[in-house]
Amino acid sequence: MVCVLPVLSEGADRNETMNDTQKAFQDYYPDEVSYCYGCGRLNEYGLQIKSYWDGEESVCFYQPRPYHTAVPGYVYGGLLASLIDCHATGTAAAAKYREAGREMDTEPPFRFLTASLHVDYLKPTPIDRPLELRGRVKEIKGRKVTVSVDLLAHDEVCARGEVVTVQVPDDFMTRIMEDAARRE
Amino acid sequence: MVCVLPVLSEGADRNETMNDTQKAFQDYYPDEVSYCYGCGRLNEYGLQIKSYWDGEESVCFYQPRPYHTAVPGYVYGGLLASLIDCHATGTAAAAKYREAGREMDTEPPFRFLTASLHVDYLKPTPIDRPLELRGRVKEIKGRKVTVSVDLLAHDEVCARGEVVTVQVPDDFMTRIMEDAARRE
Repeated sequence: MVCVLPVLSEGADRNETMNDTQKAFQDYYPDEVSYCYGCGRLNEYGLQIKSYWDGEESVCFYQPRPYHTAVPGYVYGGLLASLIDCHATGTAAAAKYREAGREMDTEPPFRFLTASLHVDYLKPTPIDRPLELRGRVKEIKGRKVTVSVDLLAHDEVCARGEVVTVQVPDDFMTRIMEDAARRE
Repeated sequence: MVCVLPVLSEGADRNETMNDTQKAFQDYYPDEVSYCYGCGRLNEYGLQIKSYWDGEESVCFYQPRPYHTAVPGYVYGGLLASLIDCHATGTAAAAKYREAGREMDTEPPFRFLTASLHVDYLKPTPIDRPLELRGRVKEIKGRKVTVSVDLLAHDEVCARGEVVTVQVPDDFMTRIMEDAARRE
């Protein structure tokens, strides 16, 4: 598998990359399900995280905003949980497409919700550099995909997450699409 | 125990209450540790949650912002994890003061960090009304306090969390205070 990783510039803000041509998992989500505060590219107030394959792992970089503090100098744990959550659901979707031998822009769309989230906070996470999240698919079992995520700052693992995700039920997905169409 | 609960008006935004005289757990945090994105009263960009005792339970109300969506109409799971996390650390601090027979405005301050966070998402959480969080102290063991939290919308439990919190080590607390003093 050829993998082109996003490269973060020293002063990179948010989740900007120097490789604007590579599409992230989240760039393939249908518009109607792209308003998630964590990963929706259409949520202008949100975190807009971007996840990519790096071989068998998925990777995401995120620079916390200055106000995402727990205590001054360190990142707020709720943000870490949010990043782990959305990076895991994105990884689950990408893994399901890969398992099916399909590209992420083919129909019908796969989208995952979180059934459970567990995070162990191993050490205080400094806020001064982009965070790196590395996801691994632990299990794909029918509509359930379990993903583990290491969150690193300065190359040290500061938090470790495990996320059980479930593919959005077809009828719920249909309802979301129909509701969105009604609003247009 | 006499308990005065905050009363939310129908159109209440954020965490405003009609009882402005009652202090929340978070109102007692020293200024230097009041910049948490989830619960710091001095973080102007943050959620600024407020937690109170209601008998043996702790309670917090929070109205998600319109952009805190997962899919349109439903609350983003990362926000739910964040609310559960900060309500639990606040509850842990309050419980520790109560165990010591001390008021929350007495020295030295107790402050708790999250060691682990687990959230089970039981059903999609509607965004149209304030959420209610109810915390219970499961165990106090030395510097470790475990808190369980039910998160309700429309009187239904939509998510359930368990948070293991640890009292901030004295040397770390001292360092934070000294760093803050240096910045002034």
